[in-house]
Amino acid sequence: MDIVIIGSGNVAAVLGRKFKAAGHTILQVLSRNASAASQLAYEWDTESANYLSLLNRQASVYLIAVADKAIEEVAKEMRLPGKVVAHTAASVPKDILKDVSAHYGVFYPLQSLRKEMNALPDIPIYYDASDGIAGSTLQALADSVSFQKSAEANDEQRIKLHLAAVFSSNFVNHLYALAENYCRKEGIEFGQLYPLIEETATRLRTASPKEVQTGPAIRHDGDTIRKHLELLNDHPALKNIYLLLTESIQQTK
Amino acid sequence: MDIVIIGSGNVAAVLGRKFKAAGHTILQVLSRNASAASQLAYEWDTESANYLSLLNRQASVYLIAVADKAIEEVAKEMRLPGKVVAHTAASVPKDILKDVSAHYGVFYPLQSLRKEMNALPDIPIYYDASDGIAGSTLQALADSVSFQKSAEANDEQRIKLHLAAVFSSNFVNHLYALAENYCRKEGIEFGQLYPLIEETATRLRTASPKEVQTGPAIRHDGDTIRKHLELLNDHPALKNIYLLLTESIQQTK
Repeated sequence: MDIVIIGSGNVAAVLGRKFKAAGHTILQVLSRNASAASQLAYEWDTESANYLSLLNRQASVYLIAVADKAIEEVAKEMRLPGKVVAHTAASVPKDILKDVSAHYGVFYPLQSLRKEMNALPDIPIYYDASDGIAGSTLQALADSVSFQKSAEANDEQRIKLHLAAVFSSNFVNHLYALAENYCRKEGIEFGQLYPLIEETATRLRTASPKEVQTGPAIRHDGDTIRKHLELLNDHPALKNIYLLLTESIQQTK
Repeated sequence: MDIVIIGSGNVAAVLGRKFKAAGHTILQVLSRNASAASQLAYEWDTESANYLSLLNRQASVYLIAVADKAIEEVAKEMRLPGKVVAHTAASVPKDILKDVSAHYGVFYPLQSLRKEMNALPDIPIYYDASDGIAGSTLQALADSVSFQKSAEANDEQRIKLHLAAVFSSNFVNHLYALAENYCRKEGIEFGQLYPLIEETATRLRTASPKEVQTGPAIRHDGDTIRKHLELLNDHPALKNIYLLLTESIQQTK
């Protein structure tokens, strides 16, 4: 497919790479951030532009991968009758694009994407579409970049998926950050925890997390919990989180 | 080495398998739980026993892999002069074994171990020892079962490592469990989050978690946070955790 990408951030960069790797052609990268746009354009051997008035109108698919708050403004300035147009945001309704084209939708990558990534991870795509033309195009595009089966998800399902992702990834990463910070302060090497962290994540494919919960909280091991809380007297923010999550583990049925 | 394992739980089972795979001989599995002990003895082609009075005294290393609370009781009943004796607990002082032998210590596996594991993960070992004989024996044993460099850790360092592991693994697993539960209630497939979860864990080897924090909290994206909190009105326990971790992310410098 011939694709125009609007945006030059993490999602734009990684999806663009995936598209290139899948054999699609990127006709243009359009972004207010001139240096980021030209960098991506160079990487993909294509043209860049910095104003919507310069939008290349020869593509069949237009992907709006900008900050959630900027989608509405971009949509207002674009009229692309006959084209397939989609944004990439979990939490923004599909209909924000209804005046851009009759064939609009959403193309939401359920993955933590960063420009700096060397290896491209698997990216499950959730798409939604206003009609059959947008639906079949976005589904084909999703299937071309994901090892996983892509799936449809409407506005409500997408925001719920995003919420589940906040718990499973954003909050998890923050616990890693707190642990790393604690280790640094206490002179422990955080890197020694990598095998444990990876085992905890990868075993999900074979066991439900509820069934494999370990640690002092689930054992109601008051001695160890007391020792930990004592160590956390110097780390009040950690102590609050320790108490709340310990209680939550013990109350989960 | 010739090893006797006291205990028949998750740690005993997985360490025993690692010892066998590394070419050591397990002379005996001793546990009050007769059926678990005989099952492990069968797996390792060795003998089992259920009373400390029947302890095989021919081994060079005795590993006490029982519940933290049971270590003291086991230690009281064992006198093994000349032997190397170690327990496997992070939070129990080394000196609990001081009357068992002059060569005592700790052999703490920093990993989430479950009997049911098919593949044996890498298990970083933290050891501590009362003297050079125990130290060199436990170090050699650690090196034989860990791909990682094993390392020494005294009582204080071990309990701090354990606390970091609670944040990075026990609490993380609980967030997975909460997300899985939420997905089930909302009719979403939790399995679609596996690629995201694995990416979040494995990228730690290339980037500090603080540098790669993503999500609505770090972006101070009030619109999305409000939508998420609205969805969590039916899930009050999740809502508390969402609020606390969002605040913690925003306050982390």
